[in-house]
Parts: sequence; structure tokens; C-alpha cells
Amino acid sequence: MTPEFSLIAKYFTRPTSRAVLGVGDDCALIRISDGHELAISTDTLAAGTHFFHDADAEKLGHKALAVNLSDLAAMGAVPRYVTLALTLPSVEENWLAGFARGFFSLADRYGVELIGGDTTRGPLSITLAVFGEVPAGSALRRSGASAGDDVWVSGSLGGAALALKHMQSTVVLKPNVFDRAAERLHTPVPRVELGLALRGITTAAIDVSDGLLADLGHICERSQLAATIEWANVPLSPALLSVGPESRIPCGLSGGDDYELCFTAPVSMRSCIDVISSEVAVPLTRIGTMHAGEPRVQVRDERGATMHIATAGFDHFSS
Amino acid sequence: MTPEFSLIAKYFTRPTSRAVLGVGDDCALIRISDGHELAISTDTLAAGTHFFHDADAEKLGHKALAVNLSDLAAMGAVPRYVTLALTLPSVEENWLAGFARGFFSLADRYGVELIGGDTTRGPLSITLAVFGEVPAGSALRRSGASAGDDVWVSGSLGGAALALKHMQSTVVLKPNVFDRAAERLHTPVPRVELGLALRGITTAAIDVSDGLLADLGHICERSQLAATIEWANVPLSPALLSVGPESRIPCGLSGGDDYELCFTAPVSMRSCIDVISSEVAVPLTRIGTMHAGEPRVQVRDERGATMHIATAGFDHFSS
Repeated sequence: MTPEFSLIAKYFTRPTSRAVLGVGDDCALIRISDGHELAISTDTLAAGTHFFHDADAEKLGHKALAVNLSDLAAMGAVPRYVTLALTLPSVEENWLAGFARGFFSLADRYGVELIGGDTTRGPLSITLAVFGEVPAGSALRRSGASAGDDVWVSGSLGGAALALKHMQSTVVLKPNVFDRAAERLHTPVPRVELGLALRGITTAAIDVSDGLLADLGHICERSQLAATIEWANVPLSPALLSVGPESRIPCGLSGGDDYELCFTAPVSMRSCIDVISSEVAVPLTRIGTMHAGEPRVQVRDERGATMHIATAGFDHFSS
Repeated sequence: MTPEFSLIAKYFTRPTSRAVLGVGDDCALIRISDGHELAISTDTLAAGTHFFHDADAEKLGHKALAVNLSDLAAMGAVPRYVTLALTLPSVEENWLAGFARGFFSLADRYGVELIGGDTTRGPLSITLAVFGEVPAGSALRRSGASAGDDVWVSGSLGGAALALKHMQSTVVLKPNVFDRAAERLHTPVPRVELGLALRGITTAAIDVSDGLLADLGHICERSQLAATIEWANVPLSPALLSVGPESRIPCGLSGGDDYELCFTAPVSMRSCIDVISSEVAVPLTRIGTMHAGEPRVQVRDERGATMHIATAGFDHFSS
């Protein structure tokens, strides 16, 4: 084994207790609990597209796993396993140690086991696949919303996008305001417990990775319904109160990287959802309604007038 | 949806018949057959490291899937599903069409369903995760070899490495010789049927992706045994007969990208393995023996003398 591979093995080979076979063979082997389905998602973070080349390795380790766990949360799946494909321009021990610290700190919080991976030389890029278990038939899909359902969103929106604007020098935030917004950007917390609690409650769900309008738009497309949301009800990141509407509106409605959950539920579930909000200690806010119509999202301002929003979510191929 | 994303969806969204839920939600959902384990592997192919930037898209689509299916073959798992994380500098319809053609042509051959993925802007890179089913406890691992076991290898070795040498102008091959060797490099055939047939027969198995010495070395490490192989018995690619020993030996013993299977089996299985060879129409050659000793691979020449081999397999971080 070359010194480089020994280093990688040092930081990323760990015993697995749940998997039948972990890192070190041609494949990992897992079993799935009886009566369960396996939820699978994969996401890439590439330097220069999703993060700056000098991004902190520990935060990157956290974020790469967090954005993938967020997809499991949006399905109501219990996180179990992860594979890590790491492309690195060179092997630097400090970087590996930091990345592993951020990655395993979050993995351990949810009992997620690293069961395989691949390391390649090339421009810095991280692709994870995550695996979660969900009782058969219980996954939260994007496709089940009904006309009349409420639209809900967790936590607050726009903080991550505002931090990015500051880093790109298109807004200037006070240091303490930036620091809190930057936490949302760099170390998002996947809403795993919330996703689990919402099983049997929601009719459709998605995580807000590309911005509220874009992601709720996916629920509309898959459910073949329209959505109307009230701008005044959208829970904004406190940091957005320090900037004008020219930043507040696009960050709140179209800002990516928040990793909140957006979901629909029947009106009859309102009080149940309020209880869940308390139990998992995550604010849940009713922001609008699903209704018959062409699959798209309308936003109304305080006076009931339709707002026209220029950007409809982050798109790597148009940015 | 932007025109670019529509194009990607056009080429990579297909109905799935086996998966509970395929492309288009936060996660895919799959079930696993009763009494089975899921084998999982992930591999990255990066431009400039694994292939030239101008590589043919159709061949790349084939190869990206083939090298991953080879890992399932080495576990004796039936290929079922794949996810595709594609990082592209730009979206070009011709490239996408070619890549999809190569990818799905091989996927369809084995009934593999594309159940999810991610598309990112960045330097060209392809990360797949593949999923296969294997009866619980029946997977071919690297760790079960016993002293006295025969060492076997399928097909022939060194063709892919020789083609690469020609492309790098370190050897010059006749056009027809190069063409056949290049097939091994660009469109390797994963030994899926062979892997399935070897369940219950082998004591350890691995696919030859990094070169015979390196990969058999992994069996040695995981089984805590030494291996001795006879150079005269190693089945070489016919293309290697056209070059001298200075290319023939390193290509045959340390050349990567062949995707044959190397495995160990008790002496009592010899006739059984010969039958399997006929049934799956893949030559299987006995090349050596496992024995007690420090975990490493020794090679003996025709006169029984130990050969000293300079390179021990392809390593992206030392190349």
C-alpha cells in the first residue's frame, strides 16, 4: 500500500457493526430489516460549483453528508449507510483529517456507517450515496399532494443564500449576522427526526435544496397541482431582516442550500403537525395551499397581489 | 426546467419495473428479495486520470458501468440497480446521447435499472454506485482463501495495459493488434455470469482492476496467506505476444483495467471449475497456489526462480 493509500485508509476505514461487510472488499454487503424498503440517494459537491476551492475541510465533510442525509429526511427514511467517492488533487493529511472529522461527527450523530468508497486523483469533488430504511409503503414522496392541502415549511429560509451573497460581495453583512447565516450555508442540519415524525402525516414532501419555489414546484409537477403561497407567511432567516427586499425576496423564495423540509398535509393534520413541531423542536409554518391548476407555484404579497419572482431556484447549468 | 436539465432528463429518465420508485424523487426506493443481501460498490472515472479528455462518450458510458458491474461480479451478486453522478463541463447533446447509448446498452444486457443520480457542472467525472443481490452468506469475499488452494484467473491479462502504452506512445502496435487490445481497455466485459457460477466454489475472489499482483495481493492480505504464481501459466492477452518481455511482463502482471476475476479454490474443485469454464464460455486458468507466509505474491519463472517485478499495480496517487 502506498503512503497515500495508507493515509486514506487511516482516516476512512472504521469497523461497522450493522453492515454485514464494510470497507475492504469488492462490495459492501448489507441486509434490510423485514418489511422495509431501502431509500437511496446520491449527490455530488464539486469545487468551484458547490463550494470555494479553499473551503474548510471539516465543514465540507459535514456538508457533503448533510445534503445527502437531507434527501433521506425528505423520504422519512432512517439513515443507515453511506459510500464516499472522493476525488482529490493531492493527498494532504491535514485536509483528510479535517474532512473525516466533519464527516464522522455527523455520521455518528445518526448512527450512519461508511461502508465503501473510492479515491481518485483529480479536481476536488465529493460524491456520496446514502442509504436509509423506511417501512414498506411509508416513504414521503413528492407525488401525493391533494387539492386543499396546506403547504408547510420547516425552520427558516434564505440564510444560506444570504451568506453566499456576502461571500460573493453582492451584500455586506455585519460580522455576527454573517456568522449565523454562514452556519446555515456550511454546516446545515438535515431534518432527519422531522422526516421520521412526518410519516403518515404528509401527502408530499421534499427538501429545500434548490430554493422554495423550485422545490415546491417539484411537488406541484409530481402531484399535478398548483400551489399558492403567502409571502408574508414564509419564515425567513433572521439574517434577512438586515437586508432590503431586493435581497430578501430572492434569498427567501429562491435561495438554495437551506435543507429545510417543505411538505403538504391535509387541513385535518394541523394540530397534529403543531405537536410534531414541539416534539422535534423545529418550527413548522403553514405558508400556502395546494389547488387544481397548471403545476406551478404562485406567490402572493400582503395585499393578495401576485408577485413576479425573477429567479426560480439555483441551477448549476444556468449559473 | 432549463433546456439543459430537460436534455439530461431526456436521456437518463426511464421507467423502472423492479424498483419501487426510480428517478424523480428525493430518493429511489428498492426492496430486496427475501433471504438476500445487497452488495454495494462505487467507482469514479475522472477525465485525465482514468480516460483521456477526448474519450468516446459511448465507450465511456459502457466502461463506467462495466467497471462497477465487475465489482458485483467479484462478489457473485446479481446486478440490479445503478445510480449515476455525472459532472460535466457543459451539456452537449451528442455527448449525452453517446454516453447514454453505451451505458444503457450494457445496463439492458444485465437488466440493471438506473434509479437515481445527480448532474453537476465541473471537470468531467463519472461516479456510479451499483447494487446487486446475493443470497445471504453466499457472497464471494477476498478473505476466505486457505493454504493449499489453487489460484485461478479468468480470460487473459495485459491487453488493456498494452493498449494504453500504445496510446501513450511507449510501444507501437500494428493497427489490428491495437484494435483488439483497445477493446479490452475501452469496452471491458464484466464477468457477471462467471461470478454467479462461482458461488459455493471459490474460497476468495477479486476482480483484476489494478493488476494481477496488486489484486491477488489483496486476497493475500485479507486471507493472511502468501501466494506463489507461475509466470508461464499466466494467461496473457494475445496482443502481448507481439511485444518484448520489457512490456509483456509488467502488462501481464501489473496492468490494470482487465476486469477479469482472480479467485482461489480448493484442489478438489478443479474439475468443477473446468465445467463452469465451459458453461460460461470463459477460459479459466490455474496460475498458482496459496500457502502460509507473509501476505504477498511471489512470481516464479520457467526455471522456478523468483522474478522481481518493478511495479505492483496501478495507483492513481503514485502515477
